[in-house]
Amino acid sequence: MTSRRLAQFVVQSRWEEVPEAARHEARRSLLNVVGTALGGSGDAASRRAAATLAPFSGPAEATVIGRRERVDCLTAAFLNALAGNVFDFDDTHPETIIHPSAPVAPALFAWAERVPMTGARLLHAFVLGVEVECRLGNALSPYHYQRGWHITSTCGVFGAAAAVGHVLGLDEERMLWALGNASAQSSGLVETLGTMAKSIGVGQSARGGLLAALLARDGVEGPERPLEGPRGFLTVTGRDPDLARVTDGLGTDWEMPKNNCKPYPCGVVLNSVIDACLDLRAVRPLAPDAIRSITVSGHPLLRERADRPAVATGREAQVSAQHAVAVALLDGRAGVAEFSDARVGATDVLALRAKVEVRDAPGIPVEGARLEVVLASGETIVQEVAAARGSAARPLSDAELEAKFRALAAHGCPGFDPEPLIAALWAIEGAADAAQVIRLAAHG
Amino acid sequence: MTSRRLAQFVVQSRWEEVPEAARHEARRSLLNVVGTALGGSGDAASRRAAATLAPFSGPAEATVIGRRERVDCLTAAFLNALAGNVFDFDDTHPETIIHPSAPVAPALFAWAERVPMTGARLLHAFVLGVEVECRLGNALSPYHYQRGWHITSTCGVFGAAAAVGHVLGLDEERMLWALGNASAQSSGLVETLGTMAKSIGVGQSARGGLLAALLARDGVEGPERPLEGPRGFLTVTGRDPDLARVTDGLGTDWEMPKNNCKPYPCGVVLNSVIDACLDLRAVRPLAPDAIRSITVSGHPLLRERADRPAVATGREAQVSAQHAVAVALLDGRAGVAEFSDARVGATDVLALRAKVEVRDAPGIPVEGARLEVVLASGETIVQEVAAARGSAARPLSDAELEAKFRALAAHGCPGFDPEPLIAALWAIEGAADAAQVIRLAAHG
Repeated sequence: MTSRRLAQFVVQSRWEEVPEAARHEARRSLLNVVGTALGGSGDAASRRAAATLAPFSGPAEATVIGRRERVDCLTAAFLNALAGNVFDFDDTHPETIIHPSAPVAPALFAWAERVPMTGARLLHAFVLGVEVECRLGNALSPYHYQRGWHITSTCGVFGAAAAVGHVLGLDEERMLWALGNASAQSSGLVETLGTMAKSIGVGQSARGGLLAALLARDGVEGPERPLEGPRGFLTVTGRDPDLARVTDGLGTDWEMPKNNCKPYPCGVVLNSVIDACLDLRAVRPLAPDAIRSITVSGHPLLRERADRPAVATGREAQVSAQHAVAVALLDGRAGVAEFSDARVGATDVLALRAKVEVRDAPGIPVEGARLEVVLASGETIVQEVAAARGSAARPLSDAELEAKFRALAAHGCPGFDPEPLIAALWAIEGAADAAQVIRLAAHG
Repeated sequence: MTSRRLAQFVVQSRWEEVPEAARHEARRSLLNVVGTALGGSGDAASRRAAATLAPFSGPAEATVIGRRERVDCLTAAFLNALAGNVFDFDDTHPETIIHPSAPVAPALFAWAERVPMTGARLLHAFVLGVEVECRLGNALSPYHYQRGWHITSTCGVFGAAAAVGHVLGLDEERMLWALGNASAQSSGLVETLGTMAKSIGVGQSARGGLLAALLARDGVEGPERPLEGPRGFLTVTGRDPDLARVTDGLGTDWEMPKNNCKPYPCGVVLNSVIDACLDLRAVRPLAPDAIRSITVSGHPLLRERADRPAVATGREAQVSAQHAVAVALLDGRAGVAEFSDARVGATDVLALRAKVEVRDAPGIPVEGARLEVVLASGETIVQEVAAARGSAARPLSDAELEAKFRALAAHGCPGFDPEPLIAALWAIEGAADAAQVIRLAAHG
């Protein structure tokens, strides 16, 4: 009954029952993901996918964040999810490393431009979509990602389907079909990470989720147990999935407030590594020549996801601990510029990253990292970080989030005035028409 | 190098090197899948999905088989794949039970309406797409389907991508990206079988494959090893996938001639079961009351895929051995009408199917079946079929295929004249413009 119980929860949820902590983190996550989409809108993957899809677009009804042209809302969901996640700079659910907003928010914003909804209605559906995808991720973790599933895409399509399904007012049966139609489209492989193909999976998760809900509304029926059935999503892509994690505490224990926004545009496991480098550099700047070797130790997830000594592009560098250490120590920053193709190919970065090794230290939590720098002199310096900036213990402040938004807008959309959009996103709960908010994100 | 070798093969293939046996089976499969799409175009799943997608369609550039309206070519690929496979009456690759044509042919026909290509070019690309998807299926079988992957959808997206990539003239690198972009969209779960959600996966495989190739053309890059990489498609969805099956004998051992067209609109494992019932009925018609119990024995795949005693819809009945036995014995036929919702709910069918049990008989090949009928009198009758109609040993003749086409057209598109389309499909290799062929499939 896992699928049905989850469908029931989404159908029956009332906005008054969603706690303020979830609402506030929802606003923060929306602000963050619109910002990362503005920043990512100029990336080659975004531009190329937009060019590919443009000739097939239907009515010019929905905003493509950071761009002038308007497209049909299925295409907008795809392109905005892609742009929101392309730098891996969007929000992260720490237990699963899902990026919850990228599949869900673009599907909702796109639909809001077709059928008007209030900001509160969008925010409510957004919280529910995040709840669904993160709970599926909880049930599947850590096996699912380790096996090779790009969990943001595979679980995200269910989040988008549930969120849009809520806005559409689907009944329990149709919400179940929406989950079934999402299950038929759930995809995304870790092998694509570090390449533009990753973003195709993420774009498809938003588009597919929106489509799944619309199909269910129109009577396209799905199976009774799309999640827990013997050949359903959790069974097939999991190993002994913990079904209780999907349904226990629904409506009381929310995933939304656990969501974090990232300070650096790279895999979240690298945050603490970069913090350690920046902390070290602040107290003791080192000439690169003085460094003999660097060992980064952390939770096994760090090595699994980011032990990439040889990378050629900014995109690959986003999941390279070696690159992250090199730029953080050399540049004293780790922003979008430090993860550009140009910086990845720079001689000084190449030289320093060759000295970096990644090791498992099972005692260190996923939010932490340990840096051990051996100098040419023989001296060893150790720098530890227990919880990275942007983690639950050290969340970015609202002001830091705004600053991040401004920097992303300036990077992706030179000349764009972000202030009206920032204000509108903070105030979205009171907006009479959510479409008016996202239309402020058009540019060019 | 599995991915690269496969990409290389598709890029370098020359039409002159494709043997006539493959060409002829390709023509037969195209005829068959256009016929099943005509038949399936009126099904509720087709009508509902078409209604859902219509408001988002771009230019009216491509034919929806069996319908009057035209849609953008990504949408046409989706809808025609859905209609082609909705009855499970399309062609089958016996080793994998992939339905090869449904994902590939609609992607090619749709693209042919946007950018003109000759019929020979389409046929060549079709053969290559079938080759790619079936070879991936060979490498993954039988684990992949048993685990719960709907192999037609999961492998089909690669077939469609490779086929369109060939038409686009992608170089080796871009063909590799096309496979990578397909890998990011590969989806489809066996749990959805028997429901309309199955068809959403199949539609998406055609659309996603077409999109994957177009994205690659436009520079959306993928990983180096989307198939065999540690977190690539074969590794993640397989268990010890047999990589040699993907690349051994490329260009000499073709999958296309192994393809079969089905005589009955249901799961291919039921063909021999139905044959046995029809054979028995021909020699000894039995009153239902005279039957105490019926045991169907066969290859374990028969039980795994079709042991469904309780079904409520025609769609579910397509994978129910119990229903197939009941209608074949009662009606002496097993056509589209015998798998309708109405027939599934009929009292005489309900009564007889309750007497049917499915058992494994590992000695029986997947093409065969054994029927054991115990009469109220105590007498036992055994009827065996070694190879079903439509199997490699007993392929439908070209004339039988045409008859099937006419019956499907009459079912799905009353008043449609199938003859010009049948003639054009047989003659497709000589067609100057493949789009002219598929445009004959519009109706209404």
